[in-house]
Amino acid sequence: MSFSPIEWRGDQVVLIDQRALPAVETYVECTTWQAVADAIRTMVVRGAPAIGITAAYGVVLAAQAGASMPAVFEGLAQTRPTAINLFWALDRMRAQVDAGADLAALTREACAIQAEDRAMCEAMGAHGAALLPDGARVLTHCNAGALATGGHGTALGVIRSAHAEGRVSQVFADETRPFLQGARLTAWELHRDGVPVTVITDNMAGHFMQQGQIDAVIVGTDRIAANGDVANKIGTYTLAVLCAFHEVPFYVAGPTSTIDLSTPTGAEIPIEQRPTTEVTHVGGRQLVPTGVPVANPAFDVTPARLVSAIITEHGVLRSPYPAGLAEHVAAAERILAGS
Amino acid sequence: MSFSPIEWRGDQVVLIDQRALPAVETYVECTTWQAVADAIRTMVVRGAPAIGITAAYGVVLAAQAGASMPAVFEGLAQTRPTAINLFWALDRMRAQVDAGADLAALTREACAIQAEDRAMCEAMGAHGAALLPDGARVLTHCNAGALATGGHGTALGVIRSAHAEGRVSQVFADETRPFLQGARLTAWELHRDGVPVTVITDNMAGHFMQQGQIDAVIVGTDRIAANGDVANKIGTYTLAVLCAFHEVPFYVAGPTSTIDLSTPTGAEIPIEQRPTTEVTHVGGRQLVPTGVPVANPAFDVTPARLVSAIITEHGVLRSPYPAGLAEHVAAAERILAGS
Repeated sequence: MSFSPIEWRGDQVVLIDQRALPAVETYVECTTWQAVADAIRTMVVRGAPAIGITAAYGVVLAAQAGASMPAVFEGLAQTRPTAINLFWALDRMRAQVDAGADLAALTREACAIQAEDRAMCEAMGAHGAALLPDGARVLTHCNAGALATGGHGTALGVIRSAHAEGRVSQVFADETRPFLQGARLTAWELHRDGVPVTVITDNMAGHFMQQGQIDAVIVGTDRIAANGDVANKIGTYTLAVLCAFHEVPFYVAGPTSTIDLSTPTGAEIPIEQRPTTEVTHVGGRQLVPTGVPVANPAFDVTPARLVSAIITEHGVLRSPYPAGLAEHVAAAERILAGS
Repeated sequence: MSFSPIEWRGDQVVLIDQRALPAVETYVECTTWQAVADAIRTMVVRGAPAIGITAAYGVVLAAQAGASMPAVFEGLAQTRPTAINLFWALDRMRAQVDAGADLAALTREACAIQAEDRAMCEAMGAHGAALLPDGARVLTHCNAGALATGGHGTALGVIRSAHAEGRVSQVFADETRPFLQGARLTAWELHRDGVPVTVITDNMAGHFMQQGQIDAVIVGTDRIAANGDVANKIGTYTLAVLCAFHEVPFYVAGPTSTIDLSTPTGAEIPIEQRPTTEVTHVGGRQLVPTGVPVANPAFDVTPARLVSAIITEHGVLRSPYPAGLAEHVAAAERILAGS
């Protein structure tokens, strides 16, 4: 890959500013944990795994500064309420802090979270690529890519791996309103890696499925409930319904850290409401008349019955999900305990 | 209504510039038929009935200037290839020209097209309003409103009439990418008329249906094929699939001039491909990386089996559509012949 979305430099974490893409490639240098929290909150960095990795480096910066650790964990945890990986990464760092780890050990742990994430994405990519037909035309939503992870990507990791095997003929990237992660980020990173990608508006997906131009949909996920319900970027549920209607497989790719066995079903997943200006304005241009209310739920929940398969670093899960998800989490915990 | 989208002034037609809404309310004065053609092509005016009305006034301006009428009809017909009302209105004007009508008669015909359209919308509104439950929460797509017609609107005419009867509690307006007619135009005209409206991005529709917050979807149409297939703004088909999945009624409102009995099915309706810059840029802001391909079909086709009812000025049609559509067209022709 020709860019580093999250780079640790010993006394700072450098983040590609995803808000400025695709027009400008610029980087934000965070030297304090508060700067890291701001970067997560303001979406300099987004994508569940990337948020967790960035927050882990934030804990290291806080420890370097001798900050009060309970306040740090509290502050970082409050930046994005739906991203389960955030809490998972913070829990790993907290376990080190509680065990009296020194700065070097804390740093190793944060770097390990990123390296493991990259390795997990590559494993996911290999498992998921096997699901796609030769010459696959794949639609994806939002950005579950290298920009959202420690590298390679989850949904885009599957696409990257399949493309490396010569089996992807076309990727359709939903632009993904309101924040346009698909148009800005997915298109940017696939185009840079030489993967053929066409951007469509979200409301064109049904039309292209109707025309028989889409063989599979692959999305990432922010949280998977114990029953297999999937929270992901707003618009994902609509795609899952379209897939069911057109008999197109609907795949979800996410590391086991995204699986939250303590959340029984999607109904218990809190849906973050984001600022309305994301909908009302694009680049300073007013799209909605002054005084008109706007809704902006950041996520929706896709019920497990609409999910053809869930791809984790440990393999491919199909319905019924509850047993398989628990098994994948247990496998991840065994590996973690053994490492 | 507190604004005039299309106003004939004897030697010019004045159009509200729909591209500048909602931030700025400005008007374009067309004094030549070429200016009218440009206004249609560049979407100063849009919406199938409004295009037909505007083109009719263009014929009057051409006649005033002594232009070569075959070239005028050819030029106006080429502005927007999918809008059947455009051809319908031009056919009415051509019949007058062929019959040797003088300027006064041509002007009367163009004004009659607008007045009849307004009356048709009011009739459609009354028929359609009866379909909605008390306290209805209605979702609409694009702008099938006063801005798209001679006044009152088709889909929004139904909503206006139902609201006047006190039976609409909430309208959801899809923003309708890429041209944002819902966010800019539907929200603007409903808000101005005091109808409660909330703007959502297109990809939120499924989420709100899943939450049980939408009782009906009402859209306009650019062309209805003889079998009941409906061409309308891109994204309409996705809404129809979502409605079928959630058992929410999906209504289409359009005047009989939108029914094209010479087009057997939706498969024969040409889909206009619009400039890619509508997708890649909003207000000068680049959303898609340079060099990445973009698709921009302006319309999609919803099969008749997903349409709960079609509302015309003559009443409400349900499946099977072919006989009913032919009957409504015959009724319209009888009225026209008798007038």
